[in-house]
Amino acid sequence: MAIPSAVGKTLIETLTARLGEASVLTDAGSKEPYLTETRGLYRGDALAVVRPRDCDEVSFVVGECARAGIPVVPQGGNTGLVGGGVPFGGVVLSLTRLDRIREIDGSNATITVEAGCILKTVQDAADAAGYLFPLSLASEGSCRIGGNLATNAGGTAVLRYGNMRELALGLEVVLADGRVWHGLKGLRKDNTGYDLRDLFIGSEGTLGVITAAVLKLFPKPQARVTAFVATASTHKALNLFERLRESAGDQLTAFEYLPEFGLEIVLKHKSGAVRPLSDRYPSYALIELSSPQKDADLQGRLETILGAAMEDGLVDDAVLGSSEAQSLALWALRESLSEVQRYEGGSIKHDVAVPVSRVAEFIEAATKACEAEMPGLRVCAFGHFGDGNIHFNLSQPVGMDKQAFLAEWGRFNHIVHDIVNAMGGSISAEHGIGLIKRDELKLYKDPVALDLMRALKQTLDPQNILNPGKVIALGDNKSASFSALTGQS
Amino acid sequence: MAIPSAVGKTLIETLTARLGEASVLTDAGSKEPYLTETRGLYRGDALAVVRPRDCDEVSFVVGECARAGIPVVPQGGNTGLVGGGVPFGGVVLSLTRLDRIREIDGSNATITVEAGCILKTVQDAADAAGYLFPLSLASEGSCRIGGNLATNAGGTAVLRYGNMRELALGLEVVLADGRVWHGLKGLRKDNTGYDLRDLFIGSEGTLGVITAAVLKLFPKPQARVTAFVATASTHKALNLFERLRESAGDQLTAFEYLPEFGLEIVLKHKSGAVRPLSDRYPSYALIELSSPQKDADLQGRLETILGAAMEDGLVDDAVLGSSEAQSLALWALRESLSEVQRYEGGSIKHDVAVPVSRVAEFIEAATKACEAEMPGLRVCAFGHFGDGNIHFNLSQPVGMDKQAFLAEWGRFNHIVHDIVNAMGGSISAEHGIGLIKRDELKLYKDPVALDLMRALKQTLDPQNILNPGKVIALGDNKSASFSALTGQS
Repeated sequence: MAIPSAVGKTLIETLTARLGEASVLTDAGSKEPYLTETRGLYRGDALAVVRPRDCDEVSFVVGECARAGIPVVPQGGNTGLVGGGVPFGGVVLSLTRLDRIREIDGSNATITVEAGCILKTVQDAADAAGYLFPLSLASEGSCRIGGNLATNAGGTAVLRYGNMRELALGLEVVLADGRVWHGLKGLRKDNTGYDLRDLFIGSEGTLGVITAAVLKLFPKPQARVTAFVATASTHKALNLFERLRESAGDQLTAFEYLPEFGLEIVLKHKSGAVRPLSDRYPSYALIELSSPQKDADLQGRLETILGAAMEDGLVDDAVLGSSEAQSLALWALRESLSEVQRYEGGSIKHDVAVPVSRVAEFIEAATKACEAEMPGLRVCAFGHFGDGNIHFNLSQPVGMDKQAFLAEWGRFNHIVHDIVNAMGGSISAEHGIGLIKRDELKLYKDPVALDLMRALKQTLDPQNILNPGKVIALGDNKSASFSALTGQS
Repeated sequence: MAIPSAVGKTLIETLTARLGEASVLTDAGSKEPYLTETRGLYRGDALAVVRPRDCDEVSFVVGECARAGIPVVPQGGNTGLVGGGVPFGGVVLSLTRLDRIREIDGSNATITVEAGCILKTVQDAADAAGYLFPLSLASEGSCRIGGNLATNAGGTAVLRYGNMRELALGLEVVLADGRVWHGLKGLRKDNTGYDLRDLFIGSEGTLGVITAAVLKLFPKPQARVTAFVATASTHKALNLFERLRESAGDQLTAFEYLPEFGLEIVLKHKSGAVRPLSDRYPSYALIELSSPQKDADLQGRLETILGAAMEDGLVDDAVLGSSEAQSLALWALRESLSEVQRYEGGSIKHDVAVPVSRVAEFIEAATKACEAEMPGLRVCAFGHFGDGNIHFNLSQPVGMDKQAFLAEWGRFNHIVHDIVNAMGGSISAEHGIGLIKRDELKLYKDPVALDLMRALKQTLDPQNILNPGKVIALGDNKSASFSALTGQS
């Protein structure tokens, strides 16, 4: 339990005087939901949780924290997977009350939203106005736009629409000294100086606090077809992906991958899930084509491509979900996979990316290496194959002690990350660095890049008060480390 | 003529010793082509022009210049339009000899190229490998990839494929102290820390020297249709654009705008140009649909959309270029417009962007304001309408003295930029800031953003030796200013 210093007490009084008591939570019960991360990997503490209502209040809070030299940990929906939002002292700055949709400009195909908007709310608002906001991820019902921006969120629609970075045009950001950068422009082209926007996006709250954004909208898909396809190997899956990309172009909106082990545990643990093909195969791809044109014959096109792929031995079997209900059922198989792994015991996870050309080779090599390291280990490699982004997860051997397995987390990380690194890949494709990969990053990131990151952090946050100790450690940030990783579920 | 100091002489000797005499040009005749910019707006000077052959040599040159405290002005094809590549003392670092295509990875849909590659060479290499590299601009036969990256180049394909920033995945960059950031990754997803890539892209050589990049490739279009369409007003053109975006989606690859005055001067000065429609209309749009699918019925789709638009009074007349030759002839009308303005005397130019929803309103308001300011002035507003990016150019009144007209450059800038600014727009959509807009930027850019830019410049280039005085002025960069703008053609 954090005991406020005199400076801390004065800060809390100052914040309470301006924001009101209901906006500055200091009792243990009220603070509780803000102190742990979603998987229970870390538990932190904070002097207070502050809940400002608008950008001015955020600016005031950050400015006062800067004057007091007290850390600020920005938090949105607190759904992150790398411990980026866990406070270790200081003040939690919850953005959830900045939840207005400020404007929808249909003609400009943009929506202006505040950081605390839930992703699903933004999707729904766009939909109601006749547009698509494409960002889509498992936690969309509770994650918030500010967190999506702070982590440059990915998800299942990146293949066609890009990461959060590609979906954002302008930002409003509170800097480490409380000043506000008014960069909330909705422009497709703007070459007036350095790209500040993309510096804040993906900085996980360590360079500034994003309070609002102008996001891109797209024409709503009017036609859609989904297929669940069996292939004999990851290499055949890659070959199929290349064909689809070439011939379907932007109609190809998803190419997700899952292995037989992944399908098995979904069928075992998810009520209502039905095996989509009559036989078992080593690997599966979930493919989606969509188009803004009602009359696009997507089913015909996909049948043609898959038919040819079958003749050429790339595809063993396939089923098309041509109705909305069938499509949703196929998607549910893929989407349940994140959740059901927990029922198979401990799980050591990696969120990695390699060049798409090497994704099949990566899955094979990493699987072989991990299986050799621990007999009985069950590899669950799945995800955004078309982006080269694989969630390379390892389920514990049946019957092994869970904590004993999880104690091997670091060892398996190195095995997998060494392979990723040798292929020119990334040890964090979409989840970010936060705390969980901060020290691992030092092993794999170009040292010049690390130096540049440190220099940028020092420039934009010279007091090191914005989410200190996350992403990159400066000096004596010993507040938390990988060893905090104990209560993993 | 720059007289080298003792330090300068030693530097030149050091560079010559390592790179060889042929790589370090010091005589006036050899330096000449590197000292002026393409429109003759500025004339600079340099101690030497250095022509390294690879990244190591670039690193050596920049490192030695840093030790000597002597400025480095990176230069590619020297085709920029804002004076960004003009040296005012120091060393010109010409990247033209770094012209290798290092790799094409078809399966990853990427091409790795060095900064000195001519854009057209990259387009051709992609094409030969069966892919599209979409960046396309007037100077593509002579501009170079390093310059395209340094200025975040735009052009005619942005509507569908994005700016250079969206086309780049990884970079190799020489920093201000000569160190090399090896960030040449070909990943679709990489959330391992701050976005260094986009900081260097668009920084116009002031934060680092880009030596190579991994760029995205796309499936080659297999079908294409072009239309030249007449509309009664900019507002009707906007309405038509919205319809096309909604129904054609990503098949809409261009929506360019030109006014009757623009068409007139093309027909007058361009041999072989033929009026595409029988009557005259206030405004025209050049529309292109394309698809990677051979069997996509683009002509049918476009005819349907344009037919409905005619019935609804949005379109007055239209012609389709369904053969490649017809398409090229229609495109030539638009592309010649940049060039032919010079035959109408002095031209005061603006490269601006507004939200797409306000582009029609902008053209109207700015036209009215400028015409009111100077009777007889001829507005030539054209360009990338679908991106909200208009080249709002002003041709002098017939018979007026050219220099007298050009003396009004600053006054018209303010009139136009005030309107742009009030609409949340940008005073440099795609050409950058360089020297010509450096002081203008201070009037319109958010002051906090300017402070951040200065802080970033000081962090990444503490000696202020990388292209000093461009984009943002630090301290006493009085080397050049707007008043240097005299020999405008």
